Amino acid sequence: MKERAEKLVGGDIRELARAVRDIDDEMPHCTELLRELYCHTGRAYIIGITGAPGAGKSSLTDKMITNYRNDGKRVAVIAVDPTSPFSGGAILGDRIRMQRHYEDPGVFIRSLATRGHLGGITKSTRNIASVCDAAGYDIIIIETVGVGQDEVEIVEMTDTAVVVVVPGLGDDIQAIKAGILEIADIFVVNKADRPGADKAMNDLRAAMELDQNLHNAAWRPPIIRTIGITGEGIPELIGAIADHRALTVQTADWEKKKKEKAKRDFMRVFNDLVKDWSLRLGGERGLEALAENVAEKALDPYTAAEEAAKRIFKIDGG
Amino acid sequence: MKERAEKLVGGDIRELARAVRDIDDEMPHCTELLRELYCHTGRAYIIGITGAPGAGKSSLTDKMITNYRNDGKRVAVIAVDPTSPFSGGAILGDRIRMQRHYEDPGVFIRSLATRGHLGGITKSTRNIASVCDAAGYDIIIIETVGVGQDEVEIVEMTDTAVVVVVPGLGDDIQAIKAGILEIADIFVVNKADRPGADKAMNDLRAAMELDQNLHNAAWRPPIIRTIGITGEGIPELIGAIADHRALTVQTADWEKKKKEKAKRDFMRVFNDLVKDWSLRLGGERGLEALAENVAEKALDPYTAAEEAAKRIFKIDGG
Repeated sequence: MKERAEKLVGGDIRELARAVRDIDDEMPHCTELLRELYCHTGRAYIIGITGAPGAGKSSLTDKMITNYRNDGKRVAVIAVDPTSPFSGGAILGDRIRMQRHYEDPGVFIRSLATRGHLGGITKSTRNIASVCDAAGYDIIIIETVGVGQDEVEIVEMTDTAVVVVVPGLGDDIQAIKAGILEIADIFVVNKADRPGADKAMNDLRAAMELDQNLHNAAWRPPIIRTIGITGEGIPELIGAIADHRALTVQTADWEKKKKEKAKRDFMRVFNDLVKDWSLRLGGERGLEALAENVAEKALDPYTAAEEAAKRIFKIDGG
Repeated sequence: MKERAEKLVGGDIRELARAVRDIDDEMPHCTELLRELYCHTGRAYIIGITGAPGAGKSSLTDKMITNYRNDGKRVAVIAVDPTSPFSGGAILGDRIRMQRHYEDPGVFIRSLATRGHLGGITKSTRNIASVCDAAGYDIIIIETVGVGQDEVEIVEMTDTAVVVVVPGLGDDIQAIKAGILEIADIFVVNKADRPGADKAMNDLRAAMELDQNLHNAAWRPPIIRTIGITGEGIPELIGAIADHRALTVQTADWEKKKKEKAKRDFMRVFNDLVKDWSLRLGGERGLEALAENVAEKALDPYTAAEEAAKRIFKIDGG
């Protein structure tokens, strides 16, 4: 495993692809690999691109890749959005457009097959981002639909969260107000040549006015107009990301944020491990027997779980 | 707590409202209450209404409530969708329309304030549904946006899952193909007076044709046209739900399904409990010290977690 880790850190793309596939398949040996890679992580900058299906996130990502590549940066893209052309879920034209990046060795694109997985998306995304980070990618772009709790968690793990809206979807902005507004670092009004672009800009401005937290904040999310297909506004978007990065890295909070992230990493791994071990220590047959009792309503699940937990933790009495 | 449980089962609405609020606030004593209530659960029929914001789910729910009430059924509504008028997230007209149900003692409506909660939505929804079940509601309607993993888990806990689409949102159907198609028991094309309704029906039919699992299935999801605002198609929808219920209850799978659900309930409670206890046994200071080591990169999170877990489970050596 040490050898695999070394190859991966050394830039072996096949080894990276294999690691990502193993993580997606939740192979047990991945922990060993992630352990070896941990000391090489923490260098990549993670950008989240979030918006409803059809908002044009992938066209933006496509143009952003080109921009970062021209700047000599290596870019990894993780597509969590099932409708993304990166995931193969789009019309042919989009997919062909992405093709050229697939042929560039400085670009690594992978989509997650984990939709529907139990508790898997956030964990897989996080681990795949770690692996890309250890493999030396400078920029990691994570594309999500951004609705639902898992996706909010994914957005929270990014360094800069870009939220994309399109003109004419009033309901969309409604939904954003309810969940995503708080975590956006930059807003993009994409397809800005469509009617309603001004209204979308104004709606976002008004929503921000209402957000008390922003009134004295050091960073006020800019709103950028783009046309993903033509690339209009992309330099401004890249610039805004750079500004946000400069500000967050400058502030004293940056080190604190990184430390808190490491602590959360630890707690997550700890909780997963405790879960695994408790199942093993509880014993398949012992837990199955209690579950049967619950299914027959002879026991309620709370009492049954307490019995099992007491046995596992070797705790006597009540 | 026994007293509170008895009152709640006896139909005391204040006690029910208090229980729901406590669950939403994740008060620790809720476990005790849920334990008392468990033997009273398993009677309600749970219907999921899922669709994008703006699909008109709430108008449908509104009309369904009226229909079930005319039939003498008691109805509980849990709104997980942040844009639902039931959650207060809608224009005034919608909210006024809902008002009359709020005044009906046979209807209990509650929205979840838990958007953004860590791991909370699914658990809260499940627990609130249990409490409404124990309180004797015949029908429980859960309204969700249906994107993201948590929401898919919520839809999976319903007995009949209704997926709502509206004409003219091609992207919407794209998204459905990727995640929701597999779990829909009934499709509704709402706002069926809009142009594109026929196309939406055809798209759904075509998507179903492609789904191999449906070819020999005992239940083939019907597609129902509705106009939520006028109530057109609602009797057909109610009828389809009754058909689906009759079929699932008839089949030998029903008992098996209920048992599996009880077993999953047990495993979930068990996992939560193990998590809580392990944190207590790990000790705040002990875990904090390990987390600090991880933050300083002196330890990787995997090794640190293993150390903590070994101590908790009283396991020696490697």
